[in-house]
Amino acid sequence: MNKPRDDSPAYLEKKRFFDSLMTVYGRKTVLEALQDPATFIYRLHLASSNKSADILDDIISLAKAKGAEIIYHERQALARISKNASQDQGVAADLQLRGYKLYDEFLAENKKKNYTLLALDGVQNPQNLGMIIRSACAGNIDGILLPQKGNAQIDPLVIKASAGTVFRAPLLRCKDLPKALGDFKQAGVIVCALSSHAATELKKFTPDAPCIYVLGNESEGVSQEVTTLCNEQICIPMNNGVESLNVAVTAALIAFK
Amino acid sequence: MNKPRDDSPAYLEKKRFFDSLMTVYGRKTVLEALQDPATFIYRLHLASSNKSADILDDIISLAKAKGAEIIYHERQALARISKNASQDQGVAADLQLRGYKLYDEFLAENKKKNYTLLALDGVQNPQNLGMIIRSACAGNIDGILLPQKGNAQIDPLVIKASAGTVFRAPLLRCKDLPKALGDFKQAGVIVCALSSHAATELKKFTPDAPCIYVLGNESEGVSQEVTTLCNEQICIPMNNGVESLNVAVTAALIAFK
Repeated sequence: MNKPRDDSPAYLEKKRFFDSLMTVYGRKTVLEALQDPATFIYRLHLASSNKSADILDDIISLAKAKGAEIIYHERQALARISKNASQDQGVAADLQLRGYKLYDEFLAENKKKNYTLLALDGVQNPQNLGMIIRSACAGNIDGILLPQKGNAQIDPLVIKASAGTVFRAPLLRCKDLPKALGDFKQAGVIVCALSSHAATELKKFTPDAPCIYVLGNESEGVSQEVTTLCNEQICIPMNNGVESLNVAVTAALIAFK
Repeated sequence: MNKPRDDSPAYLEKKRFFDSLMTVYGRKTVLEALQDPATFIYRLHLASSNKSADILDDIISLAKAKGAEIIYHERQALARISKNASQDQGVAADLQLRGYKLYDEFLAENKKKNYTLLALDGVQNPQNLGMIIRSACAGNIDGILLPQKGNAQIDPLVIKASAGTVFRAPLLRCKDLPKALGDFKQAGVIVCALSSHAATELKKFTPDAPCIYVLGNESEGVSQEVTTLCNEQICIPMNNGVESLNVAVTAALIAFK
């Protein structure tokens, strides 16, 4: 049997389409996603072992109304789609979100434009992630570079903390944050790490090119690998011996700078 | 039997001292409070029914080292002190915090000075309260007017979200927020309510007197009673049809204005 050709144009195009989808799981998450008028759903995945439940009926009728393909899977196959068997509750959905795109598309579309992005390097707390998305969406941020791994997953806590903005926020997807940041840098974009120990103050920092502000993990800050990639280290000065700000607060101060 | 005289100078002074204490409850909360070198503890209250436990031993030895009076109570008497029988876990402590004072003391001490305060009118989510305290402490806020009722209580979630700053934050205590705001207004202080519907933008608002920014409940915003007291309504303009910001984010944007 032939292996699928990984480099054929048709395969690459298909892969690109699937990469542009966001898979969410869990009954409440999927329901809330479908209730947002702006959400397009490509496929609804259900475990064939699901017992009937009102929330499943609601999910299925919303998915049908939005023209989604509905597929029933063995429990284990569903787990491979959700990548979280213990929390998917037998439901997953491939969504096309209004503001969701691959980072390289954004890069190609915005040549010679000025823009401000956030990049998330290990934001683990779902409430922080949701708040960052909400503030970025409300403030002056053109995109949030969100790697597939290493940050909190889009779950009901994130959706709630985002006040529903996750479904329209400009989320830029990448597999590997250092690779994506490298591509932005090559295109002349300034990449900054936020750090309490940095000398340059956010308020006094006025970049003359597009700029990405990297926000790190709640305890560890920006990872070493990403820090070494950055052009600048930026701080927000603090009073009273406070050592750091909450990462979502930092994001908001950037978004409303 | 004579009722205690409520208006004798000695009684009022004693009452004032007790009003200046903050009573916290719960084993982890009390332990964390005592571990902060800046915290002075006046009394440790324990339920006589407590079974022995390592964390109690730690609490007792820290309280002793800090010179606290240690009092054992019947379970119900302890509940009257903690005012939360279901969550006090048989432990309460009367703390004197470094930055904690009665609002009228602050008012008397800061005549003719310029200052910026936050006032909290129904912030219910402990994470939000903790984050507000952390940002206020790190930013340019001279005090947080925190009514005894109507906001989240200082508990382990608040302490954690505050990154421990609650023990040194400038918390101004009042019983009744409208009464306190009225007193500040009488002293020439400008009182503003934050509201998404207001016309005046935070960035363009440059008060020429001391100023209090009132932050309201997560769902309902600033209460009607307090709103009618305010001199100004202030908003933070938002993009992408976002309807409101998280209250802790709003606090941070004020603190770092």
